[in-house]
Amino acid sequence: MKYTHMTPKVQAPMPTDFAKTRAAFALPDGKIYLDGNSLGPLPRAAADRVRRTIEEEWGQMLITGWNKAGWMDLPARLGDRIGRLIGAQPGTVVLGDTLSIKVYQALASALELNPGRKVILSDTGNFPSDLYMADGLVRTLGQGYELRTVAPEAVEAAITPDLAVLMLTEVDYRTGRKHDMARLIAKAHSMGVLVVWDLAHSAGAIPVDLAGADADFAVGCTYKYLNSGPGGPAFIYVAPRLTDRVRPALSGWLGHESPFAFDLSYRPGSGIERMRVGTPPILQLAALEASLDIWDQTNMADVRARSIELTEAFIKGVEAACPTLALASPRDPEARGSQVSFRHKEGYAIMQALIACGVIGDFRAPDILRFGFTPLYTTMQDVTGAVAVMAEVMEKSLWDRPEYKARAKVT
Amino acid sequence: MKYTHMTPKVQAPMPTDFAKTRAAFALPDGKIYLDGNSLGPLPRAAADRVRRTIEEEWGQMLITGWNKAGWMDLPARLGDRIGRLIGAQPGTVVLGDTLSIKVYQALASALELNPGRKVILSDTGNFPSDLYMADGLVRTLGQGYELRTVAPEAVEAAITPDLAVLMLTEVDYRTGRKHDMARLIAKAHSMGVLVVWDLAHSAGAIPVDLAGADADFAVGCTYKYLNSGPGGPAFIYVAPRLTDRVRPALSGWLGHESPFAFDLSYRPGSGIERMRVGTPPILQLAALEASLDIWDQTNMADVRARSIELTEAFIKGVEAACPTLALASPRDPEARGSQVSFRHKEGYAIMQALIACGVIGDFRAPDILRFGFTPLYTTMQDVTGAVAVMAEVMEKSLWDRPEYKARAKVT
Repeated sequence: MKYTHMTPKVQAPMPTDFAKTRAAFALPDGKIYLDGNSLGPLPRAAADRVRRTIEEEWGQMLITGWNKAGWMDLPARLGDRIGRLIGAQPGTVVLGDTLSIKVYQALASALELNPGRKVILSDTGNFPSDLYMADGLVRTLGQGYELRTVAPEAVEAAITPDLAVLMLTEVDYRTGRKHDMARLIAKAHSMGVLVVWDLAHSAGAIPVDLAGADADFAVGCTYKYLNSGPGGPAFIYVAPRLTDRVRPALSGWLGHESPFAFDLSYRPGSGIERMRVGTPPILQLAALEASLDIWDQTNMADVRARSIELTEAFIKGVEAACPTLALASPRDPEARGSQVSFRHKEGYAIMQALIACGVIGDFRAPDILRFGFTPLYTTMQDVTGAVAVMAEVMEKSLWDRPEYKARAKVT
Repeated sequence: MKYTHMTPKVQAPMPTDFAKTRAAFALPDGKIYLDGNSLGPLPRAAADRVRRTIEEEWGQMLITGWNKAGWMDLPARLGDRIGRLIGAQPGTVVLGDTLSIKVYQALASALELNPGRKVILSDTGNFPSDLYMADGLVRTLGQGYELRTVAPEAVEAAITPDLAVLMLTEVDYRTGRKHDMARLIAKAHSMGVLVVWDLAHSAGAIPVDLAGADADFAVGCTYKYLNSGPGGPAFIYVAPRLTDRVRPALSGWLGHESPFAFDLSYRPGSGIERMRVGTPPILQLAALEASLDIWDQTNMADVRARSIELTEAFIKGVEAACPTLALASPRDPEARGSQVSFRHKEGYAIMQALIACGVIGDFRAPDILRFGFTPLYTTMQDVTGAVAVMAEVMEKSLWDRPEYKARAKVT
């Protein structure tokens, strides 16, 4: 693969025009959507962008679309555009696979770069799939490899020179609690430990400065804050100082130096391209491209400032109106991502009642009510409206009905 | 995941109405498309099916689409429909990831089921990415694990009791040469060897009887004969006698017994569901569903009979008209899949000239001209037309122009 990486030709305007970005999304009438941290809404342009990919590219170009329509380069081109949002240099981010697969790939690569050490440290606030993938890798490796987990607040003290890799999700999916990336990387590096960051709740949510923090590996998904639609592909970042030394455990043909030579032996491609595995999902990437057209009109400093305004107002409103809901997120906005969570033992039923009343957040077992604030389309009116609905649901105990209490399969 | 598997309610008509299936595809005017073995063409219904998924499901249902629109079950539901085409029982096939990832997953699982043995046998006709993934797995495992490759015709003799796993692509991507699945499985099983089949050029191309042949694992892609579009997801089959013993190395949350409990420990889900990893690509699956609506109108016996008619006529025509092209595929139709390949040292330039003249096949290094015959939309008129164009290209040496001789990045 020989895509020439360039700094994306995007001059993000200051200030970001949030009225314009909101208008670029198709939001259903009568709902307040506070679950963009789980699945971002539909960019209006996505339907037509995907239709063109289907009818004009797949339908007309057929196999030649891989070159003519630029499908083959899409994972690298869109990777560069995501890179701008997470402080990654051009040519260091590539799209593909799911986040779980990318976690495995990053971890396996990091372990191989740190031979002689066998311990992965993570925390119990990590997204379970990251822990499951690490567990699967450790079992596959055998030979004394180990996954060690500690409480999130104990991570810093648990960084010791016997670790091979520290694997953390920057922003906790339940509480929104944010790790101090730069500080933890500095401590880890001082002890020869490599770090893998999961940016699932960071990319598009908060400013991330991978290069500035001297990050080693990062992975993330695109269907949350980046609005690529259900099942959009993941991304992976590898620091340029490391890429040429990485030999990916998941060594697929599109990461080969010359995929279409069909050599029998694997030779890793140049730079980040070697982290590609199989054929990229072009329809999902087309939808992502429509979303990145909106993101190109933003800068993360504005997004962060607006996010803090929204979350602060939400916390203040809910605490005043719903005294039985206990804040689960850090009170200090600097210590949290772009979501706010409350605890209540009837959290599941309360969330069902809220959804029935048009306020869509989500529930995370055992007792977390989770609300995402996504400034590209969430307004202060949404916050006020959501607080009013929550006040009514709690005051009148609207959640205390049998139909809200049955657990659905997917919550 | 608790999807209830059922035998798909499809009574495939006999005989298959190929005029009707052809009409269900959008084929570009003035082209003869003989590359559906690389990327299948667009089912006319796919654009609207994906549009509905985007606008009515993603756009309107947002996060609730995972339940309301049945997104979460789609990998299992469509898996059952593919199962019918490959002789797999309901509940034994699930979609997700790319073929390379599924190869890794099947191989790692098979190795774990055969402890004490460390050799994977494959052949040099296998698709390179399968070999690369096996190589990556073997390197990750270390401890004496080994990938051994022999020539395709030497595979049977090379099956020995020291092998852990035999990994083969049933139909050779270059020549179309077909392995005898039942015979190789029987020999492998007699020596305690598990077998992983790659059905990339089998599913939808030839009748496959996984259950009848007592197959252990199989994987395949959907963007070739199954027409799911560029980057459509892969599938994996595990024999029901094995699934409950498989502990997937790629242990992602959607393969967990209870993904939305967010337990910190992995517990594999029931049956084939445990082979799921991350969030499924819903837009790609929607396109696949439109193609499977066409496949539901077929039966593989009819497809195979028509495929043999087409390939026999093509070989006869090309050999009569183009004496310098040497047949690279087996002459016996029973010994090949649904493609025909010819060798010529100027194969690359010849294929470029053919494409310029409207006959779309593809080139595989170093000297293979490859043509796929896909009865759902390939007609005998296509065969006659392609032969006529090939005759002219060869007779007038139309390929001997500079613009056809430069190697493109993707061929």
